[in-house]
Amino acid sequence: MNKKNRLRRKKQNYTVREAGTSPGLVYIDENALEPVITLHQLNDKSYESKKLESLKDIAKILEDKSYTFWVDIKGFGSEEMFEILGRDLNINKLVLEDITVTYQRPKVEEYDGYVFAVSRMLLLDEDKHLDNSQLSFILTDNALFTFKESYSDCLEPVRQRLKAGKGNIRTAGSSYIMYAIMDIIVDTYFEILGTWSEELDEIEDRLLDKPDKSIMYDTQLIKRNLINIRRVSWPERDKLNDILRSDSPLITDQTKLYIRDAYDHCIQIIDIVESLKEISASNIDMYLSLISNRMNEIMKVLTIISSIFIPLTFIAGIYGMNFADRDPVSGKLMPENMPELYEPHGYLYTMLIMGLIAVLQVIYFWRRGWFK
Amino acid sequence: MNKKNRLRRKKQNYTVREAGTSPGLVYIDENALEPVITLHQLNDKSYESKKLESLKDIAKILEDKSYTFWVDIKGFGSEEMFEILGRDLNINKLVLEDITVTYQRPKVEEYDGYVFAVSRMLLLDEDKHLDNSQLSFILTDNALFTFKESYSDCLEPVRQRLKAGKGNIRTAGSSYIMYAIMDIIVDTYFEILGTWSEELDEIEDRLLDKPDKSIMYDTQLIKRNLINIRRVSWPERDKLNDILRSDSPLITDQTKLYIRDAYDHCIQIIDIVESLKEISASNIDMYLSLISNRMNEIMKVLTIISSIFIPLTFIAGIYGMNFADRDPVSGKLMPENMPELYEPHGYLYTMLIMGLIAVLQVIYFWRRGWFK
Amino acid sequence: MNKKNRLRRKKQNYTVREAGTSPGLVYIDENALEPVITLHQLNDKSYESKKLESLKDIAKILEDKSYTFWVDIKGFGSEEMFEILGRDLNINKLVLEDITVTYQRPKVEEYDGYVFAVSRMLLLDEDKHLDNSQLSFILTDNALFTFKESYSDCLEPVRQRLKAGKGNIRTAGSSYIMYAIMDIIVDTYFEILGTWSEELDEIEDRLLDKPDKSIMYDTQLIKRNLINIRRVSWPERDKLNDILRSDSPLITDQTKLYIRDAYDHCIQIIDIVESLKEISASNIDMYLSLISNRMNEIMKVLTIISSIFIPLTFIAGIYGMNFADRDPVSGKLMPENMPELYEPHGYLYTMLIMGLIAVLQVIYFWRRGWFK
Amino acid sequence: MNKKNRLRRKKQNYTVREAGTSPGLVYIDENALEPVITLHQLNDKSYESKKLESLKDIAKILEDKSYTFWVDIKGFGSEEMFEILGRDLNINKLVLEDITVTYQRPKVEEYDGYVFAVSRMLLLDEDKHLDNSQLSFILTDNALFTFKESYSDCLEPVRQRLKAGKGNIRTAGSSYIMYAIMDIIVDTYFEILGTWSEELDEIEDRLLDKPDKSIMYDTQLIKRNLINIRRVSWPERDKLNDILRSDSPLITDQTKLYIRDAYDHCIQIIDIVESLKEISASNIDMYLSLISNRMNEIMKVLTIISSIFIPLTFIAGIYGMNFADRDPVSGKLMPENMPELYEPHGYLYTMLIMGLIAVLQVIYFWRRGWFK
Amino acid sequence: MNKKNRLRRKKQNYTVREAGTSPGLVYIDENALEPVITLHQLNDKSYESKKLESLKDIAKILEDKSYTFWVDIKGFGSEEMFEILGRDLNINKLVLEDITVTYQRPKVEEYDGYVFAVSRMLLLDEDKHLDNSQLSFILTDNALFTFKESYSDCLEPVRQRLKAGKGNIRTAGSSYIMYAIMDIIVDTYFEILGTWSEELDEIEDRLLDKPDKSIMYDTQLIKRNLINIRRVSWPERDKLNDILRSDSPLITDQTKLYIRDAYDHCIQIIDIVESLKEISASNIDMYLSLISNRMNEIMKVLTIISSIFIPLTFIAGIYGMNFADRDPVSGKLMPENMPELYEPHGYLYTMLIMGLIAVLQVIYFWRRGWFK
Repeated sequence: MNKKNRLRRKKQNYTVREAGTSPGLVYIDENALEPVITLHQLNDKSYESKKLESLKDIAKILEDKSYTFWVDIKGFGSEEMFEILGRDLNINKLVLEDITVTYQRPKVEEYDGYVFAVSRMLLLDEDKHLDNSQLSFILTDNALFTFKESYSDCLEPVRQRLKAGKGNIRTAGSSYIMYAIMDIIVDTYFEILGTWSEELDEIEDRLLDKPDKSIMYDTQLIKRNLINIRRVSWPERDKLNDILRSDSPLITDQTKLYIRDAYDHCIQIIDIVESLKEISASNIDMYLSLISNRMNEIMKVLTIISSIFIPLTFIAGIYGMNFADRDPVSGKLMPENMPELYEPHGYLYTMLIMGLIAVLQVIYFWRRGWFK
Repeated sequence: MNKKNRLRRKKQNYTVREAGTSPGLVYIDENALEPVITLHQLNDKSYESKKLESLKDIAKILEDKSYTFWVDIKGFGSEEMFEILGRDLNINKLVLEDITVTYQRPKVEEYDGYVFAVSRMLLLDEDKHLDNSQLSFILTDNALFTFKESYSDCLEPVRQRLKAGKGNIRTAGSSYIMYAIMDIIVDTYFEILGTWSEELDEIEDRLLDKPDKSIMYDTQLIKRNLINIRRVSWPERDKLNDILRSDSPLITDQTKLYIRDAYDHCIQIIDIVESLKEISASNIDMYLSLISNRMNEIMKVLTIISSIFIPLTFIAGIYGMNFADRDPVSGKLMPENMPELYEPHGYLYTMLIMGLIAVLQVIYFWRRGWFK
Repeated sequence: MNKKNRLRRKKQNYTVREAGTSPGLVYIDENALEPVITLHQLNDKSYESKKLESLKDIAKILEDKSYTFWVDIKGFGSEEMFEILGRDLNINKLVLEDITVTYQRPKVEEYDGYVFAVSRMLLLDEDKHLDNSQLSFILTDNALFTFKESYSDCLEPVRQRLKAGKGNIRTAGSSYIMYAIMDIIVDTYFEILGTWSEELDEIEDRLLDKPDKSIMYDTQLIKRNLINIRRVSWPERDKLNDILRSDSPLITDQTKLYIRDAYDHCIQIIDIVESLKEISASNIDMYLSLISNRMNEIMKVLTIISSIFIPLTFIAGIYGMNFADRDPVSGKLMPENMPELYEPHGYLYTMLIMGLIAVLQVIYFWRRGWFK
Repeated sequence: MNKKNRLRRKKQNYTVREAGTSPGLVYIDENALEPVITLHQLNDKSYESKKLESLKDIAKILEDKSYTFWVDIKGFGSEEMFEILGRDLNINKLVLEDITVTYQRPKVEEYDGYVFAVSRMLLLDEDKHLDNSQLSFILTDNALFTFKESYSDCLEPVRQRLKAGKGNIRTAGSSYIMYAIMDIIVDTYFEILGTWSEELDEIEDRLLDKPDKSIMYDTQLIKRNLINIRRVSWPERDKLNDILRSDSPLITDQTKLYIRDAYDHCIQIIDIVESLKEISASNIDMYLSLISNRMNEIMKVLTIISSIFIPLTFIAGIYGMNFADRDPVSGKLMPENMPELYEPHGYLYTMLIMGLIAVLQVIYFWRRGWFK
Repeated sequence: MNKKNRLRRKKQNYTVREAGTSPGLVYIDENALEPVITLHQLNDKSYESKKLESLKDIAKILEDKSYTFWVDIKGFGSEEMFEILGRDLNINKLVLEDITVTYQRPKVEEYDGYVFAVSRMLLLDEDKHLDNSQLSFILTDNALFTFKESYSDCLEPVRQRLKAGKGNIRTAGSSYIMYAIMDIIVDTYFEILGTWSEELDEIEDRLLDKPDKSIMYDTQLIKRNLINIRRVSWPERDKLNDILRSDSPLITDQTKLYIRDAYDHCIQIIDIVESLKEISASNIDMYLSLISNRMNEIMKVLTIISSIFIPLTFIAGIYGMNFADRDPVSGKLMPENMPELYEPHGYLYTMLIMGLIAVLQVIYFWRRGWFK
């Protein structure tokens, strides 16, 4: 029941842009969340994080090149915000559209003065339901903007590392922060695959113990999720590869060294997805063969019992027939009618014959291996 | 029933050019529709749309380079029209053939002075039947011709945007209008896929609630449609890529920027088609496993009831046998024949034994998990 | 029955060259048909077609460069003919071998002074049996030779066009005639696929109306034919592509423009073949699910009837037992033996109980949806 | 039975080099066969073939550049032989290892002064068991060495052609002899595929006439063999392609022209293998559908007979019940107990009712098409 | 049972790096094993092998360029060790991370002054459980470091060859030792595949003799292992190819010659894996068809016996009915009620009719081939 609901709640993430709308016009849904803007300002010495009311002064803030900035924007409910980005930071309209129409594939595009990138952030909620949301990046020389439609994310560890100042996250510039976020997103894929891998193991255990219908539901559920994650990880791989081969000055060679690592991880993700898909296919095969096997066993029971008792019942039926021993009118004896009934040991013989038939059949079925 | 008809009405779109006809000769079917020619004349200041009787003066009209023109031609029932295009606008015969033989794959071909392109327009009629028609483009420096065999189309939003003058549709030249049309066609694919995605979800719900034969029909129907849309979207993707890499001066760099967007959409279409195909395959798997499961359950009922009652009936049959207690002639007692029948509590004991057998079988089946 | 024979008659077209024969030696089977040589001689003004006895004077005839020649050779039963080709026209031995060993893949090979090409001509005979034969081409500057082992072909429309002189078939040179023939061969594929597409539609209708075993046979038959046509069309595509990219002066740029069209057609063929293969696979899936469904229905009938009547028969059997009401010797009453039989309304009550059991079972099966 | 054994006898050809042995050390098994060395010495005028005791003088023999030599070595039971090859002819140790460890894929490798190549020779023994052995080539400027572990081969036709001197086999140099051998090996693949193609046809006929379990065994057997031949033909194709693109002076342009032919053949082999694989898959599909169909028919018979007779037997059972017509003690009549039994025409009516039920059921099953 | 446990014990090797950790920081698990460091010091004259306490003096040791060193490190339980590597040998932090996070794909990466490579070592324990561990390499000009998390490995033969000094293992430098180790790892794959190939053969034998459920379990187990080995061998192939094409001076041309050999082996591994996968798929097909066949046979037995005896039992039931021959009250004869019972030979005739029915049914089933 629970399973059914989980399967049912899963919605395809195929949001559809209304056909025929003019491209490059930012469309803000009336249900869009109030934007929450967090500014992280850091260099090798200091780190500060504060909430911004709006992006009004952002161009001025970014002029201080002695800092690296991460502007973390969640919620799109302000048309003005996007206007500022277009006007003050000179972001192309198509980019702003791609940020707000949150069904882009992972990709990277180089523009004059900035780089635009999209990652798909996968989160597994407490019901193991896969939430697939878009994180968009705008990378400038000293700042990284990230955009997300909803408030939840998986970037807490990055914020912790910024605060702690461990590693070179504070000193390696904005592109390194972008790497750190992209890397954590890919790492989350590992965790999700780990969950499913365990669930597949658990399904397999159930397959061996007591296979039932839920195995089919659960495996299909995992298969769907694997289809979704694969749809995400292939273009993610291409995106990381594009970044690796990009010659934009905004992406430092040091960052590329790390991106290569994330690229390796992404290939591993794809490997694992393919393996898990094969494993779930083979679980389904096994399940179907178990159903067939069980059917065979059910039929064997039916056939053995029917084959033994139906002929015996027939014999009993014969001696239950009422052929008269005397003519009802004349009262003359008709001894030739069913003489067995008047044999002194007729009953005994009949029972022995029945027993013999039963034994022969049991031997026959035994030989065919039906009792194994 | 309804489903059956829908499946039956679907026709393969494999129109066949008569083998052996000379290439490049325009062939007008006698059932061809009367052409309806609409001329859209626009620049940054004005926009006008009017019906043309014929293309006679089109060469002269197009000479006014201060305007961008969109000549929207529907219905091919005039041989003269194609002759004018060949003569006055110098369009290659092969191109004219490709326009009229409406089973081309999406493609783009550059000729001297113009670009020829083909899109496949997919429309879903009220019966959810997929209508696959061809829209051909001829793009010159200041004009776009579109050709469609029938009157219905999905371009109303483009006409609205031309009228409204929003965005840069009026000022960005003829290639931008071509982009706008191509983009809307691809966006229609999204809508259609959305319909099918919902239908697959609905099928899945039915799978979980009350699976019946119609699931198979409906899924196959969707699969067919997916096959058709995939046949269209792969070459569409190639076409858009060819436009991106084209160095024809007729396609502006600005337009290419937008075409890149349409190209991204087209890749997403392909992604979604593949995902939906996998989902429908997995629905069929699930359905087949449900049939097998149901079969198992039917057989279990039959086997349990038969296995319990057939042996009991046999026992009842034994004590229904008429072995005589006296010799019919001599009248001598034959007490050894079926002495159980004369036991004071024979009936009771028999019933108890029968009950015991039934209970043992129930326990046996319980243990094997057949009651679960 | 008819179907079976059709399936049986189909022969694999895997003719085998005898292993170890010396390459380049023309091998003429003794059953080879008498050659029929037709010379078509044409230019923009005149057209003549005549039968030739042999190729003896062919070198001299071809010297007249003011004409384009098509030498149409059918039947290989003359070793002398091939010797003349080797000696007078300087054709490589390997080429002559490839002409006579008629199981080549479509291909094109450039030699000094001529181009050698192979097409596979598919014909559907009246029994819808696929005949797969080889048409070989030798293209020189002003002549085209075609070679076919048997007399039947699908080139009549080309001959008609030559006679009629429509289009540029008379003036565009020998390579254009080669194109015209190759194009008509590919067009024939369309017609054949059209036939199969219709047959698949008809099979699908039968699937929905009254599925029977013949569906499997017919679909397999079509699948086989599709496998054959795919084996032919992939290399055909490669061949046309090779011609497109060829820089041989024998193939004019104008011809290449047309070849591009044939290439497009060939890609469409491949698309259609793949689609039809998927459709036939999905027909088979549907058929198998229908068999399973039908099995379920059969089993339901059996189970419902058995489950209702077997227990009732058991009850009837109980009251058919002959437990004695009196001791046969003493004649003493044994009222405790089957007292129900002596109940005034025992029969009525029994019938009521039986009816109740039956009704309960019907309700049970109804609830499980077995009557739907 | 015979089939089973054939299937069982088949051994995987996955010989395993002992892990960790030093590479390049020739390892001679103690069971290795005594080497049989045949020297073929030929030029345009003469041909001689003689057995050699050992390779001691081989370097000196090969110095006579007016001859072409083919040194045909079978059996590896002489370590000295390989030492001579290494020392006198300067053959790399890794090459010698590859010759003796006979599980190489087809490949070609160019070394200083010689070319090393490997072909897989497939032979079909009288039990249609596939024997997959390695033939290694060392090609020098005027000599060809071939190495085979066992004595049997398929090269007799090449020896015949050398003796007969037909074609250019004697004059075209050592690389042409290598081609001739490689070509005959590929041609043998055709013969083997021909055998299997016929067997598949024969299986198909059996499928249509009387399908039984052996169809599954036989098809699997063919599938296995197809897997093996495909494993061989893909690298064979690559090898021939490598030779075509090789710029080694040892391989003449003339030979390359012929190799192109062998390459075409190899592609055809791959085509045929794929087609045969699809055909055997479709045979298995058909077989499985036939099993399901047969099951349906068996179940129909059971269900029809059970459904008709079980209810009738129940009715008979009712009137076989012994409800008493008189109280055993008081002797009072109990006419309400089973009054039907005392109806004058009770038996007749009962039989008519039974007949009616049977007829209704037959009509029901007829309508559902179960008698078709 | 044993099988079940083996299947159950198998764990996915998808270790997961904790998301969000800073890259390039070496993370040492508290359960990490105490490092065991073995230094092999060799040149053409001498060979010495000794245990090292720590890596403290390693930089000094390596300064002696007259020796080649192999530093074999097992167990990662010392953070200091990695610090030394980073500080004294200048190894990049990301490399050290990749060494310790042991779920890398096989890869090779060139750094300044050294080459980093990863191999996956597969070991089959006594329960045929596949152990997949990582062996990392750092190759410098005169030294090779290998890193393994646990103590067991398959490198004993390499150590033996170093000791024995056979071949050129002592003189060919550090890259040759790396090759020797990589080669032995790939060779181990062959051994493992050999084991599974044999097991598949054994499963196939069981399929032919007495197919049971364990076939499914065992085949799935092998399939899983094949999935794992394929996941390892594809990137292994890419890695070896990368080494072949590398232009690092650390990898000598001589070594590359040998690597080409290992590369060939790796391609063979992939071939074999694919073949074994197809074979196990075809085993499963065969098994499923056998289950279906067996089902058919079970059903045939049931149907034959039921069809014969159910109608006969019905007839017996008819003559077991108690239609009275006299009116219980009036005592009047009712001879029309069941006159057959009073036929002198009624019983005989009945038995003959029953026998006839049985014989007709047997003939019917015989004709349908059910006794075959």
